[in-house]
Amino acid sequence: MKITTKYGISLWSCIVLLGTITSSYVTLAQSAQSKSYCDYVNPFIGTQGEGNTYPAAVAPFGMIQIGPDTDIERWETASGYEYSDTLLYGFSLTHFSGTGIPDFGDFLFVPSTGKVKTFGGKRDTYNSSSYRTRFDHRQESASPGYYSVRLPEYDITAEMTAADRAGLLRFTFPQTDSANIMIDLKHVLQWKVIWSQVRIMDDSTITGYHYVKGWARDRKVYFAARFSKKFERSGIYRNGRIVEYDPFKTYRFVSRYEAADTSLQFFAAYRTTAGEAITVKVAVSGVSTENALLNMNTEIPHWNFSHVVNETRDKWNNELMKIDVEGTDDEKTTFYSSMYHLCLTPFIYQDVDGSYLGMDKSVHQAQWFTNYTVFSLWDTYRAVHPLFMLIQNGRNADMINSMLKHYEQSVNHLLPVWSFYGNETWCMIGYHAVPVIADAVVKGLKGIDAGKCYDAVKATAMNREYDNVMLYAKLGYLPFDIENESVSKTLEYGYDDYCVAQMAKYLGKTDDYNYFINRSKAYRNLFDKQTGYMRGKDSKGNWRTPFSLDECSEDLRQRDFTEGTSRQYTWYVPQDVQGLVALMGRDLFEARLDTLFALNIPGNNQTAEDATGRIGEYWHGNEPSHHIIFLYDYIGKPWKTQSLVHKVVSTQYGSKPNSLCGNDDCGQMSAWYIFNALGFYPVCPSGSYYAIGSPCLPKAVVNLSNGRKLTIISNNLTKDNIYIRSMTINGSEWNKSYIPFEEIRNGGEIVFNMTNKPNKKWGTAKESLPPAE
Amino acid sequence: MKITTKYGISLWSCIVLLGTITSSYVTLAQSAQSKSYCDYVNPFIGTQGEGNTYPAAVAPFGMIQIGPDTDIERWETASGYEYSDTLLYGFSLTHFSGTGIPDFGDFLFVPSTGKVKTFGGKRDTYNSSSYRTRFDHRQESASPGYYSVRLPEYDITAEMTAADRAGLLRFTFPQTDSANIMIDLKHVLQWKVIWSQVRIMDDSTITGYHYVKGWARDRKVYFAARFSKKFERSGIYRNGRIVEYDPFKTYRFVSRYEAADTSLQFFAAYRTTAGEAITVKVAVSGVSTENALLNMNTEIPHWNFSHVVNETRDKWNNELMKIDVEGTDDEKTTFYSSMYHLCLTPFIYQDVDGSYLGMDKSVHQAQWFTNYTVFSLWDTYRAVHPLFMLIQNGRNADMINSMLKHYEQSVNHLLPVWSFYGNETWCMIGYHAVPVIADAVVKGLKGIDAGKCYDAVKATAMNREYDNVMLYAKLGYLPFDIENESVSKTLEYGYDDYCVAQMAKYLGKTDDYNYFINRSKAYRNLFDKQTGYMRGKDSKGNWRTPFSLDECSEDLRQRDFTEGTSRQYTWYVPQDVQGLVALMGRDLFEARLDTLFALNIPGNNQTAEDATGRIGEYWHGNEPSHHIIFLYDYIGKPWKTQSLVHKVVSTQYGSKPNSLCGNDDCGQMSAWYIFNALGFYPVCPSGSYYAIGSPCLPKAVVNLSNGRKLTIISNNLTKDNIYIRSMTINGSEWNKSYIPFEEIRNGGEIVFNMTNKPNKKWGTAKESLPPAE
Repeated sequence: MKITTKYGISLWSCIVLLGTITSSYVTLAQSAQSKSYCDYVNPFIGTQGEGNTYPAAVAPFGMIQIGPDTDIERWETASGYEYSDTLLYGFSLTHFSGTGIPDFGDFLFVPSTGKVKTFGGKRDTYNSSSYRTRFDHRQESASPGYYSVRLPEYDITAEMTAADRAGLLRFTFPQTDSANIMIDLKHVLQWKVIWSQVRIMDDSTITGYHYVKGWARDRKVYFAARFSKKFERSGIYRNGRIVEYDPFKTYRFVSRYEAADTSLQFFAAYRTTAGEAITVKVAVSGVSTENALLNMNTEIPHWNFSHVVNETRDKWNNELMKIDVEGTDDEKTTFYSSMYHLCLTPFIYQDVDGSYLGMDKSVHQAQWFTNYTVFSLWDTYRAVHPLFMLIQNGRNADMINSMLKHYEQSVNHLLPVWSFYGNETWCMIGYHAVPVIADAVVKGLKGIDAGKCYDAVKATAMNREYDNVMLYAKLGYLPFDIENESVSKTLEYGYDDYCVAQMAKYLGKTDDYNYFINRSKAYRNLFDKQTGYMRGKDSKGNWRTPFSLDECSEDLRQRDFTEGTSRQYTWYVPQDVQGLVALMGRDLFEARLDTLFALNIPGNNQTAEDATGRIGEYWHGNEPSHHIIFLYDYIGKPWKTQSLVHKVVSTQYGSKPNSLCGNDDCGQMSAWYIFNALGFYPVCPSGSYYAIGSPCLPKAVVNLSNGRKLTIISNNLTKDNIYIRSMTINGSEWNKSYIPFEEIRNGGEIVFNMTNKPNKKWGTAKESLPPAE
Repeated sequence: MKITTKYGISLWSCIVLLGTITSSYVTLAQSAQSKSYCDYVNPFIGTQGEGNTYPAAVAPFGMIQIGPDTDIERWETASGYEYSDTLLYGFSLTHFSGTGIPDFGDFLFVPSTGKVKTFGGKRDTYNSSSYRTRFDHRQESASPGYYSVRLPEYDITAEMTAADRAGLLRFTFPQTDSANIMIDLKHVLQWKVIWSQVRIMDDSTITGYHYVKGWARDRKVYFAARFSKKFERSGIYRNGRIVEYDPFKTYRFVSRYEAADTSLQFFAAYRTTAGEAITVKVAVSGVSTENALLNMNTEIPHWNFSHVVNETRDKWNNELMKIDVEGTDDEKTTFYSSMYHLCLTPFIYQDVDGSYLGMDKSVHQAQWFTNYTVFSLWDTYRAVHPLFMLIQNGRNADMINSMLKHYEQSVNHLLPVWSFYGNETWCMIGYHAVPVIADAVVKGLKGIDAGKCYDAVKATAMNREYDNVMLYAKLGYLPFDIENESVSKTLEYGYDDYCVAQMAKYLGKTDDYNYFINRSKAYRNLFDKQTGYMRGKDSKGNWRTPFSLDECSEDLRQRDFTEGTSRQYTWYVPQDVQGLVALMGRDLFEARLDTLFALNIPGNNQTAEDATGRIGEYWHGNEPSHHIIFLYDYIGKPWKTQSLVHKVVSTQYGSKPNSLCGNDDCGQMSAWYIFNALGFYPVCPSGSYYAIGSPCLPKAVVNLSNGRKLTIISNNLTKDNIYIRSMTINGSEWNKSYIPFEEIRNGGEIVFNMTNKPNKKWGTAKESLPPAE
């Protein structure tokens, strides 16, 4: 697929436009030569199949994501856009990137000609009475901050661009007496609009809101839209009927300028000349229509479409350049598209005046930090936030500050589990805000209050109600007759508790350290020595019998694992891999790992939606597997890790719409790739080191947030030369299969020397192995 | 019915408690001797039948009205309480006083013992599975700011009292293991909860809100409740099921501290000892739960129930004493209950920090005025606001300021028609914010900006969309083939335009004066000389044929009148009664009036719900008739007015639950009584005089807002001596059948000398008749 960008800008115009440009930016921008970083981003990657990304126009970490929706009915199309679809509904203002569950799709903009249609149509029945319309990828393009598509049935070109909270949609019409722009307030992805309001403010401006009972049970979104051309005709449909006063039907007066109900559409109608463009300026707010207007007027006070495109493109280049890589165009496309996906979530969730709707449904002011939302923490604690700890320190600190506010405002006094737009979904398991915060605290991240962090983290880990955490604390494991997914939860709680312990140690709280480090050993209580697997245990101490390695039961009473089986979860002791090796025995450990990647179990499709990106029973498409490849490092078999890294990178990533084998999960799949392109991976965030994989690009310069540079050079890297023959860190020979954070926190140079055969001497000595954390 | 008040307070305790007491208050309070004004208020008046008042605990113009709901299904029970009912649902926080359409009933508090019931039951099916419970008027009492009732089925006594935005509910339980206080967020009167949320904040506090699609299409109300005793058990029901985490049913964690949906109930459960009282502190807000908490904590920082009772009682005495009357206990009960009803609506609609939700659905700050809501203007422009112009100047100014904010925030740029809680209902006809504002401007009310008032008034009267006003302006009438209720609208627009003209004159806008005074003559275009009645005319100038005097058609195309027929509406030319006399001819005018009060048309029940309080075809139960009695003054037959005033007062008012013959309509029925008890009535608000009726009480002292006193003495008044033999104003003989506002604006003394026979010499000379305004 060819990405055409109308707004490719030169290096120099880019530099001129960037007001706050740093000298390092100039250097980096120059090294990118004639192509900008944005030129290597293909937003369509992940839009086909499981990836669940979107091609919408969006700024980095932007609150508005303006793009096409092709599906509102299928669970699998969580972003609203599936590349295989041939029809689209229109263009809505908000989208998730890569989640496994749909939501958003707020406020659909539908340009058309002819009679205004108010009904989008059902997926399986396409007919001309519904507004869904055909499109073709050959007449579609997307780049960072820009999306366009041609709608041949109407002879309309739709383009859109986005600032942080506001954006522009530009519709180029044919000559017609009946050009329409309709806004459907009822449209959302999958879920249900509980209530909505729309208000025609003047001859070219409307505002509105809707409340959605969705994955977020109680989500409120407000918007404003201003049209570049005065409405020639305009109106509101309520439940399919035009809202207007009729003395002999409606009896009492009816304002045609506002309506409230569950199904509302606004339309503006025009006569247009051939090629006439009408632009709609839009903005969203989580607080009020007034604030949506404020966001709109503040961020885009003009009508210059390409100015917004260029500004946002500059913002993107500024984020993407944080890692400057060399490689083929295809490799760079994969890499920068991953960087792009990384920088979509969590996104800002506050208006230009700092106000946002909190977890307590009250409006708060973020006065000294920027409030973020969309915390997919079960996914993102693994690699997204660890990557932010290298290159997005400021944002990561504010994400943590946002989580602390969530904790303060939470009626359960809990840190977020899976939250967005002031709602907790309780999706997934564990308390994985903890590793994110712990990693930041123990690494000394600036901009957060370590004491407050610890209070929130400890209160969360000691909560008496959430998912039987305190029963786990008491028994040392969760019994399967009392809690579902008891094995996965026990294991993940253990890791989270290790993170609490690290914070306690850092803060000199010895008693707490001892308490939590003890809790973190819980995995031992569910390791069944007889089978050598993690196995459910009931409250009387009996093992789950019968015990299936491959079944992930739909019966919650039988379900001991989360989106997986014991085959994946047995490896989930990131905080004490050496402990697990000791428990299992080194040989069995290795054999089991070998088997995992080699197994082929045809009937094992119980959790088929998650079991994607399969290499045997290693499922790269879902997070529980993400650290497993690196476990070979711990037993002195790093070449197996190295080989598998390249196998995953070459088979599970790429530059095509279907190149993501699983949900990108708010950047986690992409972050996995980025780390592995560099050559290492944070097996145990909040721990002290990264496990070494195998670099996938010849050179990378990581512009650390502290202003230092970490340069990674992979000499002699080819398709075959995927094994580390030797390496140096800051000029010194490096034989360990892990890199302490302290070695690179202030930048430096890592040089990998690659070869086509496993070097069975490198990283194999006992002192070279990654230690227990 | 006997009103028992637990908190009758002595004069002196009352004086001591009143912090801001004025010297005039002391004088007045002393003149009330051992009984306080509040002792003469029976809140049950109007609760049986058409009155639609409530017995709830409420402060003067208070935003919270805490009281029992006996009905949620019947249109006729608009306040939620019908005295004839024998079952009640519980006690909700908000109520309308006297409207013809139900709404409010927000947040029902249900005390009980035994199993918590979450369903109130249907009106026609009473059974023990629903929470509706029996009550008996013998164990019920109400007084200003206080309500109590015994619930024999549960052996519970429920008491409630209210401050401005907050209140207390005290439930006295028997000894039981299962005392419950349930709050039903789904409960509202008649309409539908679109969405709601509840949140258990701590061990004794909850907050919540609901959004109601009601008469107000988009109404949002927030509340807070704090319990005097920590919850022993508590929980939330959603759609009838307890909200709790069950690992094997709910799968993911569920917080038991919050829920959002369309059907929510919260409960707190206790073990209680015999006679144990649990008090719940409550508050409402139109802005947020945070503000509801703020209102609660600010207004009632303590748990002293009787302190709130006494404070509110003091506030009531302070309002009621604005007119100090003499009379029998029964007369004083009728009078002060009318004063009480007068001082319920419009009520304050802003939080203690000044914030309120505006018509534009944004939160605004009322910084220099107090924001009010519930504008039933078609009713209240007639006598409520004219009375406020005498005794509630400050509030009336702020009500006008609130209406100006409505205008500013209105997407239609219109003053309110019938509005509440940031919603316009468009109920009834005309633009009767105009007479309220015009009356204030031309009488020089302080605290309003006359220029802004005029802008809003003129913009409203010139609106190009509202109810075909500009077609009326063009044609001089509304054609019945284009607009419904065209005759009533033409006539009422004409009066409103007279009011605009008065403002224009006052402000020196001569062109505008000429324009609007010309519009105000529109009634002439619909006066059919042949029949001598107001009659519909189509756009070609043809009279409505056939023409029925008595039919008020349900077919909107046939319906030329509003809640009435030509028999009532022919008299609707308050601004130019002498013009109407001239048109109709004096003899016919009198004969027609005589007929009106004498007619008995058995089949005339087309608008039966409004045609109440009948004296012939004079329907005192609805507003179009309210000025008619005084029209005899204009033809020199004031004794007929005098006789009819007493007929209406003696037959349509009283001190019993069924003593209001029609909807009190936010105080209009009561205000009619108050004026007539004094002896005069504002036939044409914004005009220069009152028509004289006949006083109904021996003495009244009106404490005008400017600090002056208007004393009215009725010598020799008895049941038979209802005619004015003679009168003086400030010591001078007064022979005119009207009183110019200028005569009394600075107080003074009116002395009526009453007799038992019509004095056909008084008020009959040509120069004595009320002139055309």
